[in-house]
Formats: sequence, structure tokens, C-alpha cells
Amino acid sequence: ARGWVALVGGGPGADGLLTARGHELLRSADVVVVDRLAPRDVVDRLPDSVVVIDVGKTPGHHPIPQERINEILVEQARLGRAVVRLKGGDPYVLGRGGEERLACEAAGVPVEVVPGVTSAVSVPAAAGIPVTHRGLARGFTVVTGHEELASVPAGGDHTLVLLMGVARLHETAALLVRHGRAADTPVAIVERGWTPGQRTTTGTLATIADRAALRGVESPAVIVVGEVVRLSPEWDAA
Amino acid sequence: ARGWVALVGGGPGADGLLTARGHELLRSADVVVVDRLAPRDVVDRLPDSVVVIDVGKTPGHHPIPQERINEILVEQARLGRAVVRLKGGDPYVLGRGGEERLACEAAGVPVEVVPGVTSAVSVPAAAGIPVTHRGLARGFTVVTGHEELASVPAGGDHTLVLLMGVARLHETAALLVRHGRAADTPVAIVERGWTPGQRTTTGTLATIADRAALRGVESPAVIVVGEVVRLSPEWDAA
Repeated sequence: ARGWVALVGGGPGADGLLTARGHELLRSADVVVVDRLAPRDVVDRLPDSVVVIDVGKTPGHHPIPQERINEILVEQARLGRAVVRLKGGDPYVLGRGGEERLACEAAGVPVEVVPGVTSAVSVPAAAGIPVTHRGLARGFTVVTGHEELASVPAGGDHTLVLLMGVARLHETAALLVRHGRAADTPVAIVERGWTPGQRTTTGTLATIADRAALRGVESPAVIVVGEVVRLSPEWDAA
Repeated sequence: ARGWVALVGGGPGADGLLTARGHELLRSADVVVVDRLAPRDVVDRLPDSVVVIDVGKTPGHHPIPQERINEILVEQARLGRAVVRLKGGDPYVLGRGGEERLACEAAGVPVEVVPGVTSAVSVPAAAGIPVTHRGLARGFTVVTGHEELASVPAGGDHTLVLLMGVARLHETAALLVRHGRAADTPVAIVERGWTPGQRTTTGTLATIADRAALRGVESPAVIVVGEVVRLSPEWDAA
């Protein structure tokens, strides 16, 4: 048999938010290469005959370099195996899916990309926050690096979704205010969205960093900045 | 039985890109309220016992106002029915999902929001374009209105996804150049993504409007602006 690779967006972690095509490909997989953020329930329910290769970063261990992950995909497919690369969220939203696709193509390995429910939109939704909403936001920006924060639209009516982790939150909030956002712009941090451990912390650009520190907020988390945060049942401006 | 409403993101149109939870809810639905952009194959395969209410805009017909759609959802649920509101893409990405959720909540109707695969990310993916890619783009912005174009990040390394239709493309491209984007920034327009009629037109901010006019490009289409467009197998700068 000729091997192949499918880069499957696993969604934010809830079992039900994997696509039908994703489930279908997993049923025919010989090998599943998983991330730290791939949906755990889905991985745990794979039959014993499926080889699971975990390339996620775990505390105290060095992450597997992307180049090595690319090699693993190609190697496994060349052994004639059906390989599903299961990722958290969507393969093309900070998922390195483009690199993996190019590596497969360069090696002549058939590769399919299956979009997933991106965490950038669905994790805010888990806390009742729509990234767009009539009268509140017509568009949204997703960023991962501090370098970009200076140039994002500054209006409270354009939603900002930060996937960069919470470690530099104090600096991030200050930078956004310095570049024109109102200090009272609502902010929400959603930890572990779509899992039983989901927790939402709200505040404003002025208060959120201190609140997050007080509650011990940690990654993985999605940060949402903008007026739409007021639609969350957990919004608390006080 | 007590009625309920589920706002289900149907994904970009391909059957396989609906989530498992979406399929599950459709199986228990008495009534399905569909959009013009809801996945047609899924709707066509519903059993005859399911009442399909089409609230999509069709040429020559006035669209049903959002307020009336909200009423329909509440009315049907109050009749004790299981109501699935099936949308294209994700309910919270320009899907008016927030308004529908609030209308249900205000009426005391149980409502669940099921995120979907957003067209903003998956339609570019259908043409081989990742909205983020190492070395090319760390983030992306999704906009629907011309008002926002002046304030979006101008670097070619920040992807811009336009969901505003193609009618004003000439004006849009000129506006982006006036606000700092290079005239040779790659652009792709993906029509009818994930359907057999999918077609991709590429060019630069300087050439795309003329090319689109020449080919008769029309809505629904997703426009992608940025260096990531070069990763499409259909990229053609000439």
C-alpha cells in the first residue's frame, strides 16, 4: 500500500468539535502523530492497533524540532502507512501545517489538509464571547507575537485575539494602551477552553494582568480584547 | 417536550467539515433553519420528517430581517421543537450568532452554540493558502467593512482576509495601497471554496481587480492578501 499523510485540525479539544472528515481519517489511520494540544479524548479512544507518536512539548523535555516532525511524517508514509497528524485547532492557524504540507510534497508523499475549528474563535465562544457582533465588532485580528501588537487596529470595535500565552500579559496590556487602545477596554482570558477545567478571567487592559497573576492564570489560554467581551456571562468589570 | 435551539457552524460547505456535534444535533432536530451559505449536501440529506426553513437571501427576494429570524427560532422552540440553526462557517464569525443567542436567552429558550470551521481560514486553505506560516505571517486579520481597511496592519507578513464580497475590489485594493501596503502584495480570490465549482484567481494589489473583472469573479468569495498567497499551487504573479 502507498502511504499518505493527513494534517487534521482537531479543534479546541472537545470531542464533538472534531470534523466528520477528521473522524473518518482517524478510523483509517495506522499512525497518529499528536501535539500537546490535540484533543486528548480522541487520542485516548484510538484502538490499540494504532501507533501514537507524541511530538508535543512536555515540561522538562525538549520539544521535538519541526524539521524532525516533518521527517517523521515522511518516514512513516514511506513505510506505506496511513498517517494522521492530529493538531489542536486548525492546521494553518499557527499550526505549522504549511511547513508539514510542503515537506510531504517535496518528498512526493500524498498529503491532505483538513481544516479544523480554530481555537482563536472557538475558545472565546466557549466563554460566550463572539469575535464579531453587530454594533460591537465587524472584524478581528489574531496575533501571536509582540512585534505585531503596535500595528493592530486600536478601536475597541475590532476584536483582538492573542494566542501568545499569558507570561508577558503585563507588558502586552501596557503596549496596547500605549498604541491607542483605551485602558478600560474589556479583556477576557479563557484557560483550557472546552475542557472541564475551563476558567474565564475578565478585566480591562488596566486591570487584567494583576487579576491574572492573582488567580494564577496559565497557558494554554486565549486572550480576547475588545467590546465583545461584555457579552460573556462571566464579564465582570468591577 | 421542551424545545431548544442550537446554533451550529456548518463549516465552509464540504460535508466532511461539519463537526461531529453538528451532525449529532442535526440527527435530533425537528426543524432546521438554514442560511444561503449553510452546507447544501447536509441539508439535502435531512430526512423528510425534518422541517427545513430557508431564511437565506436569494436573488430577487428580500432577505428575511435578522429580527424575524430570531423570532422564528424562539417561536419554533416554544412549540416544543428541537431547532438547529445551521449556518455557513462559524456562528460567531459574521454569522449573527451572538444576536440569535441573546434573543433565545431573553426568551428563556435553552440555546447551545456549536463552533464551526470558519470560512475565513478554511476557504484560503482550500486553495493551499495558510493564513499563518513561519517566516511569512505570524498573524491575520479578518474584516468585512471598508471602514476598517485603513487601520489594518500594513505589512505583507500579516495576512488580511476580506469577507466583504468582490463588488468593491478595485476600491479595496487602492485603499490598501494608499494605507501602506506594497502594490505588489500577492492577492488571491477563492470563489465557492470546498465545492466542485471552486476557482482561485491570483494577482497583486495592483492587478487583482482587473483580473477578477476579466474572469467574472463573483460572491461568495474569500479574498486573501499577503505573502502567504505565494504558497498556493495556483499562485501566478505574471
